[in-house]
Amino acid sequence: MNGYKKLGQQTIIFTNTPTIASTGTVVGPIEDKGPLGGNFDIVLPDNLAGEMSWEKTEQKMMQKSVEIALEKLKLLPSDLDYFLGGDLLNQIISANFTARYLGVSFLGLFGACSTFVQGLALGGILVDGGYGNRVGVAASSHHETAERQFRFPTELGVQRGPTAQWTVMGSGATIISCQETQGPKLTHATLGKVIDYGVANPSDMGSAMAPAAADTIVNHLKDTNRSPEDYDLIVTGDLGIVGKTLTQELVAKQGYDISKVYSDCGVLIYDPSQDTHAGGSGCGCSAVVFSGHLIQMLLAKKFRRILLVGTGALLSSTSQQQGESIPGIGHGVVIENMI
Amino acid sequence: MNGYKKLGQQTIIFTNTPTIASTGTVVGPIEDKGPLGGNFDIVLPDNLAGEMSWEKTEQKMMQKSVEIALEKLKLLPSDLDYFLGGDLLNQIISANFTARYLGVSFLGLFGACSTFVQGLALGGILVDGGYGNRVGVAASSHHETAERQFRFPTELGVQRGPTAQWTVMGSGATIISCQETQGPKLTHATLGKVIDYGVANPSDMGSAMAPAAADTIVNHLKDTNRSPEDYDLIVTGDLGIVGKTLTQELVAKQGYDISKVYSDCGVLIYDPSQDTHAGGSGCGCSAVVFSGHLIQMLLAKKFRRILLVGTGALLSSTSQQQGESIPGIGHGVVIENMI
Repeated sequence: MNGYKKLGQQTIIFTNTPTIASTGTVVGPIEDKGPLGGNFDIVLPDNLAGEMSWEKTEQKMMQKSVEIALEKLKLLPSDLDYFLGGDLLNQIISANFTARYLGVSFLGLFGACSTFVQGLALGGILVDGGYGNRVGVAASSHHETAERQFRFPTELGVQRGPTAQWTVMGSGATIISCQETQGPKLTHATLGKVIDYGVANPSDMGSAMAPAAADTIVNHLKDTNRSPEDYDLIVTGDLGIVGKTLTQELVAKQGYDISKVYSDCGVLIYDPSQDTHAGGSGCGCSAVVFSGHLIQMLLAKKFRRILLVGTGALLSSTSQQQGESIPGIGHGVVIENMI
Repeated sequence: MNGYKKLGQQTIIFTNTPTIASTGTVVGPIEDKGPLGGNFDIVLPDNLAGEMSWEKTEQKMMQKSVEIALEKLKLLPSDLDYFLGGDLLNQIISANFTARYLGVSFLGLFGACSTFVQGLALGGILVDGGYGNRVGVAASSHHETAERQFRFPTELGVQRGPTAQWTVMGSGATIISCQETQGPKLTHATLGKVIDYGVANPSDMGSAMAPAAADTIVNHLKDTNRSPEDYDLIVTGDLGIVGKTLTQELVAKQGYDISKVYSDCGVLIYDPSQDTHAGGSGCGCSAVVFSGHLIQMLLAKKFRRILLVGTGALLSSTSQQQGESIPGIGHGVVIENMI
């Protein structure tokens, strides 16, 4: 029998400490011009990069990000026990076609922009539990594919409001392993609940996701009996400036001051001068900020321990047209240098 | 340390034998008029059942199926550690809104019509690995919501071809537990690869899924070193008559004759006189046939051991319009009476 591996209501402890063994990132030109530019493995020259459609470009980005992560370990796709992936497109086509290429057991995930962290948590479970040696996790997004599916085709030139975020063009992939032991470890996962405060504006995803992000952060701290100071960084996925401010307030109302250690991938990835309004969003946002930037900070020992909370707005144009609001979800993982 | 829990390339062994503790089913009127009628917990009178949209009806079906499964054990939603769910609708809205209602940690899955079995496999992993005591798994579909999203709105009255299948209106839910010990056990899971033989006809999902179903069945038998006769039933999710015939042929080419024990949920659920052409399909198909019919056969000891292979056609209208074929996937689980 395994021991019971849950702390409190929602948090899993990984006793076998799965390793973040490798990462790969592919981004678009705007992402490379932002504050994190220079941290990504491949920068595409434009939003098509030679493909016939933006959707095909997004799929190629995801595939390439996994290939890069594998190459860094001199591994082949067949060395993976599982591929866990997802994206924002209907039926997660970027992930499906990437899985077709990789040819290993595939678990398709949909957690909107929380998908990457949902994958890290599940990948941690698979490796920690002895169900496999190596798991590939990837998530992608693309500004144009997301705009035409969820809002307006970009060709229409509809003006964007101040709360709107810019969907990141990029894919981040991570290999979680118990065979490779170099690298920071996954130590906990806090899988989130769906929470809905009634926000119904598809151009204000940050406000829709903030309550779920706050709930996961607070429950994580309660479950682990930790304080914000136990982390060098608590970082949400893609709340942007509006959602980040709200999250910090909601967490403070529960008695935790995270202001000194709190940031958001959607705030980190673009500079205000890039005119992306409230910041970055999309499955690719937390995927490339973690797999490009945060992992390097961990490897350089600038961070000892971080809490990464992937945040998803479960927006559907169908349910929205039928009068529904936009529920949110937040999944958290702790990544830590054990030495 | 846990022991390593994989057999061969793709198969997991559950050493702590998670129990299928309860199930709940809600179906439409056509499903109840089929050969399995009388096996379902709730039968709705029509395809709206008092809701304002088919999508809302589908969501209510999923919610109710989970409630029924919980009620049978006298449990509340808060007794679940996790809810794992998915459906065919863009952004899996039926599952998201059900998760909002349940208020527990949620993992959103997308495996097209393989989603229910993907959920059983992951639920087995969570319970087997000690990551939780009880997991709720559900998947749903609805003929009208699927037709208007993937093919033609039913109001158009487009004629259906002979290879077309009828999307099941229904939701099936299952509680996997290590706290309740009465019931058949999950003993293995074989998580499938994405396989694509180039079928591109959205009215022939059976042919698109057959290669993936065959691959998972063959790999399961190889990994476990078993023969088809070790099972009382090998049953695929929703291949229908066309896909079932193809699967049997493809498996035979690999040296396994499954003809004596092989069936398909899409073939079982409708009678040919119901004019559903090649049979049933949809996430709800394997979910209600397992949770309504197969579980009762197991509980009545008419089956000792079955292999259930959920089959998904990863069809997207976007990728199809861009010239892509329809990849398939099949996930298998073994369910067994241990005495």
